Amino acid sequence: MQNLIFTNDVTAAIERLEHDGGHNLTVWIADVNTARLITPTPPHLITIPDGDDSKTLETVTRVWDEMERMGVTRHSLVVNLGGGMVTDLGGFAAATFKRGVRFINVPTTLLGAVDAAVGGKTGINYHGLKNEIGAFAPASDGIISTCFFDTLPLQEMKSGFAEVLKHAMLSDRDEFLRLLNHDFCAPIDHDDLLERLRRSVQVKVDIVARDPNEQGERKALNLGHTVGHAFESLAMQRGKPVPHGYAVAWGLVTEAVLSHLLLKFPSEDVHRLGNFVRDNYRDFPFTCDDYDELLALMRHDKKSRDGEITCTLLSAIGNFHIDQTVTPDDVTAALDILRDHLGL
Amino acid sequence: MQNLIFTNDVTAAIERLEHDGGHNLTVWIADVNTARLITPTPPHLITIPDGDDSKTLETVTRVWDEMERMGVTRHSLVVNLGGGMVTDLGGFAAATFKRGVRFINVPTTLLGAVDAAVGGKTGINYHGLKNEIGAFAPASDGIISTCFFDTLPLQEMKSGFAEVLKHAMLSDRDEFLRLLNHDFCAPIDHDDLLERLRRSVQVKVDIVARDPNEQGERKALNLGHTVGHAFESLAMQRGKPVPHGYAVAWGLVTEAVLSHLLLKFPSEDVHRLGNFVRDNYRDFPFTCDDYDELLALMRHDKKSRDGEITCTLLSAIGNFHIDQTVTPDDVTAALDILRDHLGL
Repeated sequence: MQNLIFTNDVTAAIERLEHDGGHNLTVWIADVNTARLITPTPPHLITIPDGDDSKTLETVTRVWDEMERMGVTRHSLVVNLGGGMVTDLGGFAAATFKRGVRFINVPTTLLGAVDAAVGGKTGINYHGLKNEIGAFAPASDGIISTCFFDTLPLQEMKSGFAEVLKHAMLSDRDEFLRLLNHDFCAPIDHDDLLERLRRSVQVKVDIVARDPNEQGERKALNLGHTVGHAFESLAMQRGKPVPHGYAVAWGLVTEAVLSHLLLKFPSEDVHRLGNFVRDNYRDFPFTCDDYDELLALMRHDKKSRDGEITCTLLSAIGNFHIDQTVTPDDVTAALDILRDHLGL
Repeated sequence: MQNLIFTNDVTAAIERLEHDGGHNLTVWIADVNTARLITPTPPHLITIPDGDDSKTLETVTRVWDEMERMGVTRHSLVVNLGGGMVTDLGGFAAATFKRGVRFINVPTTLLGAVDAAVGGKTGINYHGLKNEIGAFAPASDGIISTCFFDTLPLQEMKSGFAEVLKHAMLSDRDEFLRLLNHDFCAPIDHDDLLERLRRSVQVKVDIVARDPNEQGERKALNLGHTVGHAFESLAMQRGKPVPHGYAVAWGLVTEAVLSHLLLKFPSEDVHRLGNFVRDNYRDFPFTCDDYDELLALMRHDKKSRDGEITCTLLSAIGNFHIDQTVTPDDVTAALDILRDHLGL
């Protein structure tokens, strides 16, 4: 199983892993922004372009070529430093080079720390389809730190926080209520945030350990995402992309409403969540004219089957139910309630 | 763990797997030769060029493109029908498409049945390096049959048989002695050969189950291959490629000699093996002028470390010792004895 290290002394943690592993070579993979965080510049650094548009087969082949040129072997170590794009692509490159070189993930974003960097999903986009090519290949270690977050844009903090919320909704009502008190405008309390991360990541780790290849329980982590992905794709189609976590936040509220309608999820928790999302994740412009397109997008979700819309729903915070089929009428009702609540 | 079906009714076995899996789509991957074995032509067939030269990233991307066009999802089934090239490449394409579609291997060669199609190694060549890009991803099922072997060239039967011999050397002296009585000129006794395959594959399956990612014991399967790969690469460099199994057969004898020199492997078994290989795997032209190149190739083996030559050696049939370091002098002595024995 993946080893996780929660620390704000990242350099020491990486040096320890390098030393204990007895590797012949350490290669860093970073994007043009995160490469600057590594000082002094390491002897073996592969810098890739940033942004999801560069998460392509062409970039992977460039990484493979560099790995070959540097003499990477099965006894080498790859350090992926960056957001989800770097850990997804770097993980895929390492997992497939010589059928697998050890790699560790050092996420530099909240979303990466709480989601992308742990759990073993690697991959690239292909023909414009997200993560169409990839592998289930866990990093040997993840180094989870808040030390990169002081310079993170507020929007990226909020985006990652939606996944933190999701993990609490799957596991622990006290933590859920605590998170709803979070103030994004206050300076970061690193000790507290690292503790929140520790709890949040543990939820994912426990679920993934029981179902690494997403045959069953792991689908719980899809909470908020069936609807959220549809919002994200719609915004993309409209030429006004939104951060992943914003779409997930709206998806979480919508699926909480669906949970209330279908599984009697308590309305007070729907309202608490709805208020938090309304206050922190505003600005999603959609109308009832978009319903048909949203429903079509939900039917095309990677995890859907036979054109049905399936979600993970909750009967209460901590009680999730995977593979719940919802009808277009259910979704329409939930979207109406969401729009009403958000004042759209 | 991988499910293995030993049968000479391949069609029925595939139909049962298709039916039990409840897949939305079955895609066949075959090369231009093995595609002709599938009658009637299935609705979803991806035909790739044959030969190791086509085991490339370009071919994989063509397979991915076809899978997309056909609407393959996570609920589909991929059937790889062919030799090691098809099962290696088709397995890699399936294992990485949408992070993994279920695939089954139906090897059509003896080498594929006993080696390539089981054990979860998938991959492609890259920049001329064998299996440089790939993944450890086991087929869900392997259908092992002798029904394709009647039309197999004698040379290919012999090539695969070397791996059968290797498995017996790792496990069972009675089986080893029985195999040395094999007559390649007699018509195939399908029941007997299927039983030999069953035993042989089981040896590999047991070892892989204990060490799927080749951290330790799995290296036992490398018996004969440190030296064998060097022979194979030398022949390639000389422009006179030899079948993989022939090089392995010579590697097995050489490493049996090394085992005798270093671990007191019984000389009578060296001689029995040497006679069988001399009688069936002749025609390997090399002289003492090639020793330096052979040693250099052994040092560059994917599993070597720090430029040392490491082999799996035997103290007796069934008693293997991985990670044995051998000196250039040891190898030179063993090659001298091999040449003497083969009458080169």
